Amino acid sequence: MSQSGKVYLVGAGPGDPELLTLKALRIMKAADVIVYDRLVSDEILELAPQGITKIDVGKQPRSHPVPQEEINRLLIKLAASRRVVVRLKGGDPFLFGRGGEEALALSAAGIQFEAVPGITSAQVTATCLNVPLTHRGIASGVRYVTGHCRGDAELNLDWAGLCDPQTTLVIYMGLANIDQITSKLIAKGRDPETPVMVVSNASRANQSHFVTTLKHAAIDVRQGNIGTPALFVIGAVVRLAANLGSPRDAPQLGWEMAAE
Amino acid sequence: MSQSGKVYLVGAGPGDPELLTLKALRIMKAADVIVYDRLVSDEILELAPQGITKIDVGKQPRSHPVPQEEINRLLIKLAASRRVVVRLKGGDPFLFGRGGEEALALSAAGIQFEAVPGITSAQVTATCLNVPLTHRGIASGVRYVTGHCRGDAELNLDWAGLCDPQTTLVIYMGLANIDQITSKLIAKGRDPETPVMVVSNASRANQSHFVTTLKHAAIDVRQGNIGTPALFVIGAVVRLAANLGSPRDAPQLGWEMAAE
Repeated sequence: MSQSGKVYLVGAGPGDPELLTLKALRIMKAADVIVYDRLVSDEILELAPQGITKIDVGKQPRSHPVPQEEINRLLIKLAASRRVVVRLKGGDPFLFGRGGEEALALSAAGIQFEAVPGITSAQVTATCLNVPLTHRGIASGVRYVTGHCRGDAELNLDWAGLCDPQTTLVIYMGLANIDQITSKLIAKGRDPETPVMVVSNASRANQSHFVTTLKHAAIDVRQGNIGTPALFVIGAVVRLAANLGSPRDAPQLGWEMAAE
Repeated sequence: MSQSGKVYLVGAGPGDPELLTLKALRIMKAADVIVYDRLVSDEILELAPQGITKIDVGKQPRSHPVPQEEINRLLIKLAASRRVVVRLKGGDPFLFGRGGEEALALSAAGIQFEAVPGITSAQVTATCLNVPLTHRGIASGVRYVTGHCRGDAELNLDWAGLCDPQTTLVIYMGLANIDQITSKLIAKGRDPETPVMVVSNASRANQSHFVTTLKHAAIDVRQGNIGTPALFVIGAVVRLAANLGSPRDAPQLGWEMAAE
């Protein structure tokens, strides 16, 4: 009986390779095989050892090239013959990453695994665009929800609970349902003038964003050409960004990306 | 007129130096001076250049050795004479880190600044203890709130909104008010049997945790000897941890901390 390998469920963060953790980089450098998502950037994949197998199981919105059950089976199979299997996910594996489902499958199959956290999109949006997620007197907490649901099902969210004006609301994967999301929030009592920041590809070269209101967000999204992944930050903290400016506007000190 | 320096509001993550981002490490290595919090670990401070000034403005719970306004003034003053001022914070600067207040003060003074995200305690608890923060069919979102308030004031949280059983609730800085928090949640309708994980010092050598219920959390906290910082994870996802085990129980591959 040979000892099977170990699967690392690694958060790759939002795309900028510099936002990887040291731990994620160390594990990637030791990988025998990498299984990665659509949201993992090329620059990050290039940090893996030369010549190892990299398997794309990327999910496009509204299509699932590789079903989750098949990814689970693939990870189990790979761990039988490789020592270090790296399952690389955009963001954080345990925040909308379905890492929990993979962990349960691995655990049931008796395969060792370990999860490694990553910077999630909400945090990188906050720091790239100077929108503090919490702020004394303005937001005492933050809430991340998914705006995605299976097929054409209606979103089943805790709408009334999403209306607290003291909580910054961040919607992941909400582009397709933004009409429904904003109209329900307004119907449940959230101020239609609440500022909304729409951000796509935070931290990447093609980062873009605009600021609107809850009332106008859906129409602005239809008229704009928003790239995916997109994130919605809803709440009074968005107004702080106007006072803070964008770090990209400021002259940078002339450092290079740290050579590894 | 001399050009003033730049202040980096850097998230140092939860304590394990391997959970720093590459960007945070690069900026620390270039620092001329570091201004740090109580929650920044010694191992992380040791990564700074030898011989630079490191200023401790650490806040102990219920005492504020250096008031926030004074920290703001200090950062502005340091930026006048140093090129790279690193303001190092536990976790993430824009999640309960008061980074927004410092950013506003710097902006008003015309000082350049840039925020760098860090792994927040909720994420490191999730990965160190195998509690997915979201999980299909169990938790469609996560909410982070602070359980801390000034002096003896009553906590003013959106109690009804905190009761959604499909949202994982993470309480930061809630140790002193856990009695009030759990009794209000139960009074507002959250199931008293909801599982609660209490975690202190996640990712550090002195990490400890236990699992209880909403009904018993306050008494268990009084009877236990919980270290700070402590975090409460409340929700059905805590039950998944029992199926997943703790990564610390599994044999580790024999890697060393990546030599820099």
